[in-house]
Amino acid sequence: MPIIVQKYGGSSLETIDKIIDIAKRIAKKKSDNYKLVVVLSAMGKTTDYLMDMAFKISKNPSKRELAVLMSTGEQVSIALLSIALNSMGVSAVSYTGSQLNIVTEGFHTASRIADINESIILNEINKNNVVIVAGFQGVNKNNEITILGRGGSDTTAVALAAKLGCKCEIFTDVDGVYTIDPKLHPSAKKLSTISYEEMIELASSGAGVLNVRSIELAEKYNIPLLIALNSGYIEGTMIKELDSTMEKSSITGLAVDNQQAMITLNGVPHDIKIISDIFGQIAKHDINIDMISQTTPINKLVNISFTIPKLDLMTTMKIMENYKNNIFTFSYETFDNISKLSVVGIGMKSQPGVAAKMFEILAENDISVHIITTSEIKISYVINPDKQQTAIEAIAKEFNL
Amino acid sequence: MPIIVQKYGGSSLETIDKIIDIAKRIAKKKSDNYKLVVVLSAMGKTTDYLMDMAFKISKNPSKRELAVLMSTGEQVSIALLSIALNSMGVSAVSYTGSQLNIVTEGFHTASRIADINESIILNEINKNNVVIVAGFQGVNKNNEITILGRGGSDTTAVALAAKLGCKCEIFTDVDGVYTIDPKLHPSAKKLSTISYEEMIELASSGAGVLNVRSIELAEKYNIPLLIALNSGYIEGTMIKELDSTMEKSSITGLAVDNQQAMITLNGVPHDIKIISDIFGQIAKHDINIDMISQTTPINKLVNISFTIPKLDLMTTMKIMENYKNNIFTFSYETFDNISKLSVVGIGMKSQPGVAAKMFEILAENDISVHIITTSEIKISYVINPDKQQTAIEAIAKEFNL
Repeated sequence: MPIIVQKYGGSSLETIDKIIDIAKRIAKKKSDNYKLVVVLSAMGKTTDYLMDMAFKISKNPSKRELAVLMSTGEQVSIALLSIALNSMGVSAVSYTGSQLNIVTEGFHTASRIADINESIILNEINKNNVVIVAGFQGVNKNNEITILGRGGSDTTAVALAAKLGCKCEIFTDVDGVYTIDPKLHPSAKKLSTISYEEMIELASSGAGVLNVRSIELAEKYNIPLLIALNSGYIEGTMIKELDSTMEKSSITGLAVDNQQAMITLNGVPHDIKIISDIFGQIAKHDINIDMISQTTPINKLVNISFTIPKLDLMTTMKIMENYKNNIFTFSYETFDNISKLSVVGIGMKSQPGVAAKMFEILAENDISVHIITTSEIKISYVINPDKQQTAIEAIAKEFNL
Repeated sequence: MPIIVQKYGGSSLETIDKIIDIAKRIAKKKSDNYKLVVVLSAMGKTTDYLMDMAFKISKNPSKRELAVLMSTGEQVSIALLSIALNSMGVSAVSYTGSQLNIVTEGFHTASRIADINESIILNEINKNNVVIVAGFQGVNKNNEITILGRGGSDTTAVALAAKLGCKCEIFTDVDGVYTIDPKLHPSAKKLSTISYEEMIELASSGAGVLNVRSIELAEKYNIPLLIALNSGYIEGTMIKELDSTMEKSSITGLAVDNQQAMITLNGVPHDIKIISDIFGQIAKHDINIDMISQTTPINKLVNISFTIPKLDLMTTMKIMENYKNNIFTFSYETFDNISKLSVVGIGMKSQPGVAAKMFEILAENDISVHIITTSEIKISYVINPDKQQTAIEAIAKEFNL
């Protein structure tokens, strides 16, 4: 009897009726002779509701206590699903992160899973119990309740699958991974499979389906990861190890990111010490620089453009002002509305010329590029947002996305 | 710096504003140099809300899972109060029953506290932290979450005070213990002190202020127990060890219980084996017989009256029917509307004649008594409910309650 880890998100647990539906699906799967470990998020908007209460009390609530508060959301879900299963005659037991000894490291509200003691789960599975696990939470070495950082319950599910060496099924409110976000390009195609590498690049380039950390974890332990719709009746997308030479198309997908801002510094001395100092100042403020381009020097001065998360634009501007007034003189421009397009494909490794082809498409459509960065399987472009839709259509057509 | 355990009930935690008010009171007490351990119930109607969800899913929800579900209520309270205190600059840490290792025995949803490891609390107190504890919950030896039986959070508070050897203050929605429930007798007097013994008798005779188990625990460890109003500005009632000879009045209080039903069996053979068998059958169904009276035998037949909780009347009638049809013949009457009055006073020990005085009062007011039971410090009477108010007024007047 194979073990499967399944994860259900908050929107599939919004109401008592939906919880009963999920219980029926699990009962069916159990009757097909699977051993099941089920990871749950909090019901519907519970997490927002709890967060709201905390922030009504304090603008900066204690992180330790925030974790204690938030973790109750998933605890309610696991108890209710377990009650539903037991009432259907399917024996089930719920476990909080703390009970399962999901040991975490780091901050209370942004922890990473360090280890899981899988013996408790194996013991319950051997007693023929469905094991219902609270996602998004753990316990640190001081026995304090912690919650995981981004990726939350997905990470719990993948980490459990990794420990148990089994497949992981993530049920969410999208029915799989598409070549392009269907909201941006309604005729985008759903992928039946995609490689870990490609999915990581897509996710880190703005495709919101899954958090990068979960996919990296799945890749590390080679855990097949299914993304499928809550209802369970539509075939989803399988994320797994794929051989690049078997790929037919050079590009698998296109991700669009509108959450970045760009800053261009004009007239910076062409001195590596100065340039690295500028980026060092920004990094000190925990601001993540994504793309960077630099012009060739003219009169020993260069222009530098880089992108940062939109949310960090004000802070970055303050750092630049300080620099400009105290260190040396330069001017800078900010662009708070840019479009970052990333084409991703494991096929790029074996099929060169994608970058050239992309330039051709953009030139044909009179789209100018502000920054380009490339990795082995991804090329990203910053363009003006008014050209975004034109670029999406042209790229989709050329690469049959 | 003395340690105090305080307990706040659900009605004082109903809203964010009320939680902030409680935090302010605790901050004030802390600034008066007390070391504080604070036990909380769930916010307002949370427990009902959680229970409703469980019973919407199943008429007989898994007890293990019900405990997992219900315990989230107190967990939300402790996190929010701790957030409030920390935001006021008062360092506080929250602990669930499981984190504090409040070890329980018995059923998942009706556990009794077996032991508490007070070292965690002492350690936090020594770090100058206010310790906020989730009431009503613990963990069994299998590391499963449990909830306590009746008395709930009050029991947690008293048990902690017992372990720490300190005073316990229970803040609730009544401002103390009265000679008679003020709803029944508006001119009833509030008691400034009452003995454990008297409070146990009053509570077990229908006075709802505190659960019997909490008071028994306080008596066992000789923990002074203050009952006071949520707002904290009105002097409450102190429950403690009192010397009976120092008492001035023979009766401290009058409790009224309208939750009992009475059954009278007519023509039962005067045979101890038969009578004990009847009560044995009832006990087998976990039905608690409270008062019993038996007439003197006439023709070797006796009449027996006894009281049981109203909720158990149907079951008891079925048992009687079975008995009547299969064992021997007798008739029975049921009275589902009776009034049980109990006068309680430690002074009875040293001042005899209370029973006689009571009979005098009842006779003067033409009130007939169905059953009487007496203990060292309590006399209980079953009367018709239409005479209840007359009896209360007359007893209150006579004993100056």
